[in-house]
Amino acid sequence: MNPPFEVTILGSSSASPTKTRHHSAQFVSLDGSHFLVDCGEGTQRQLLLHGIRFSRIRYILISHLHGDHFYGLPGLLSTMNLGGRSEALLIAGPEGLQALMEQMLNASNVELKFTVSYLITNPQVPELLLDKQDCSVHSIPLEHRIPCTGFIFREKTAARHLNRETCDLHAVPMASYEALLQGMDFTKPDGIIIPNNLLTRPGRAPRSYAYLSDTIYLPDLADSIRGVDLLYHEATFMHDLLDRAVSTFHTTARQAAMLAQAAEVKQLLIGHFSARYRSTDGLLAEAQEVFPTTAVAEEGLTFRF
Amino acid sequence: MNPPFEVTILGSSSASPTKTRHHSAQFVSLDGSHFLVDCGEGTQRQLLLHGIRFSRIRYILISHLHGDHFYGLPGLLSTMNLGGRSEALLIAGPEGLQALMEQMLNASNVELKFTVSYLITNPQVPELLLDKQDCSVHSIPLEHRIPCTGFIFREKTAARHLNRETCDLHAVPMASYEALLQGMDFTKPDGIIIPNNLLTRPGRAPRSYAYLSDTIYLPDLADSIRGVDLLYHEATFMHDLLDRAVSTFHTTARQAAMLAQAAEVKQLLIGHFSARYRSTDGLLAEAQEVFPTTAVAEEGLTFRF
Repeated sequence: MNPPFEVTILGSSSASPTKTRHHSAQFVSLDGSHFLVDCGEGTQRQLLLHGIRFSRIRYILISHLHGDHFYGLPGLLSTMNLGGRSEALLIAGPEGLQALMEQMLNASNVELKFTVSYLITNPQVPELLLDKQDCSVHSIPLEHRIPCTGFIFREKTAARHLNRETCDLHAVPMASYEALLQGMDFTKPDGIIIPNNLLTRPGRAPRSYAYLSDTIYLPDLADSIRGVDLLYHEATFMHDLLDRAVSTFHTTARQAAMLAQAAEVKQLLIGHFSARYRSTDGLLAEAQEVFPTTAVAEEGLTFRF
Repeated sequence: MNPPFEVTILGSSSASPTKTRHHSAQFVSLDGSHFLVDCGEGTQRQLLLHGIRFSRIRYILISHLHGDHFYGLPGLLSTMNLGGRSEALLIAGPEGLQALMEQMLNASNVELKFTVSYLITNPQVPELLLDKQDCSVHSIPLEHRIPCTGFIFREKTAARHLNRETCDLHAVPMASYEALLQGMDFTKPDGIIIPNNLLTRPGRAPRSYAYLSDTIYLPDLADSIRGVDLLYHEATFMHDLLDRAVSTFHTTARQAAMLAQAAEVKQLLIGHFSARYRSTDGLLAEAQEVFPTTAVAEEGLTFRF
């Protein structure tokens, strides 16, 4: 079975929350690494309600400093501290985030008993933010009213599979299997070398997830997210409010779908809906007209791939 | 009918929220004035869920700068602004609150389109914070780990009632009724003065509400809250955890009830419960042993008096 690659939606609303929708936050699990992506007000309770233990979160990525994406962070850090957290935490986000968090926590006289490291994101150029054994996270510059980046999560090439038939044919001992899976060739006792690609087959294709919020429609992004398994894209408005989307540096549902289509992603997930939409049916229908494999972000939903 | 004096509970939890309990916040309505008292994270959604329009709130009182009492404030101000608010807002709270709010809003590039005035509370001495025609609000110094005040809301002496019989007897014209209700005597055409207390009766007793959170047990407070109609007092712990209450500058349910008894209040309302209590039954029972007319704060409950 593949290691889990999951995205759980904790908030699907834009700047104003509604009775049913919360400010932006997602919990992303990828090959044993766990990320909180954005942390709008109320995220700590959303984590509680959806059974996600705070201790699992080792990385917090903040796209930009609009309140609906980070006002939940000082409270989450405080509550993690009260809960006795000892695990270090890495927070990546725009310049200024660290100072704000320290001011809010200092006012409350909170002294964190765990290490928090901050990584300042660059809103101008894509950067490698995190390079782990199994996966990587890059930033993607977006264009919003204030500096903003998206994030792309990529699994590294999955381990190769053994070709049992050729291994048996060449009498490869089991003790050498691990080396084969890591790409080594096999040298027989008589000195003959059997190349790795005769003894193994490629593993499954590595998976990837792109998180793009908030931004004006940027068709040029297609190349940097091409073929991802899941693209989350903000769709604050329907296309009849294109003028409003443009003036506020947001995207319409149709535009999000156009990007998904151009980038040939496997699935599109839209979210960050204006509070004016009581139902998301119209937003979904508009996106599906262009890109049929579109889904709607809804609190508590988990997307597995 | 008396003008409404109501307290609606928006949050009953202490520092850590739970699946059912939110951080501290209350909506207080008194003779046409509307107050938000404390504003923990998530308060804006609690207001939405309980049908309280943001525009009704003209005064926000913050007891102290622990996150569970004010981390919801920048988000509430942002959302008020997005909603097109124009009404001025007065925020009373500890020194430092204004700078924090401005830093959080500036980071988000929010320019408020309504006036916000800040009033710095003094944690050392009781002060008159607000003096309106019908009611007043005073601060009450508390003792917590950081500077903290409670608040006491007092209705002013209610208008006197006309004594129709004696008014008719002395042929007081209707045009003079308003002056009588304001306490003036009536002078007859022949120069004879009829004292006000012959022509009117006292109105009902003025009502009052005291909000005390967070604090170590302070029995000396009894005098300043004597006889209030409703006393909200924090009861973070049960009395078996008295040591923990003392070391964290909190109060036990039994101590809250002891203060209510000593101050001869009409009703006690306990809240700010530690997340360790799944049920509040034990806290309520402990308080009721000492002070039977105790109620438990619960999200969405409204207390009218």
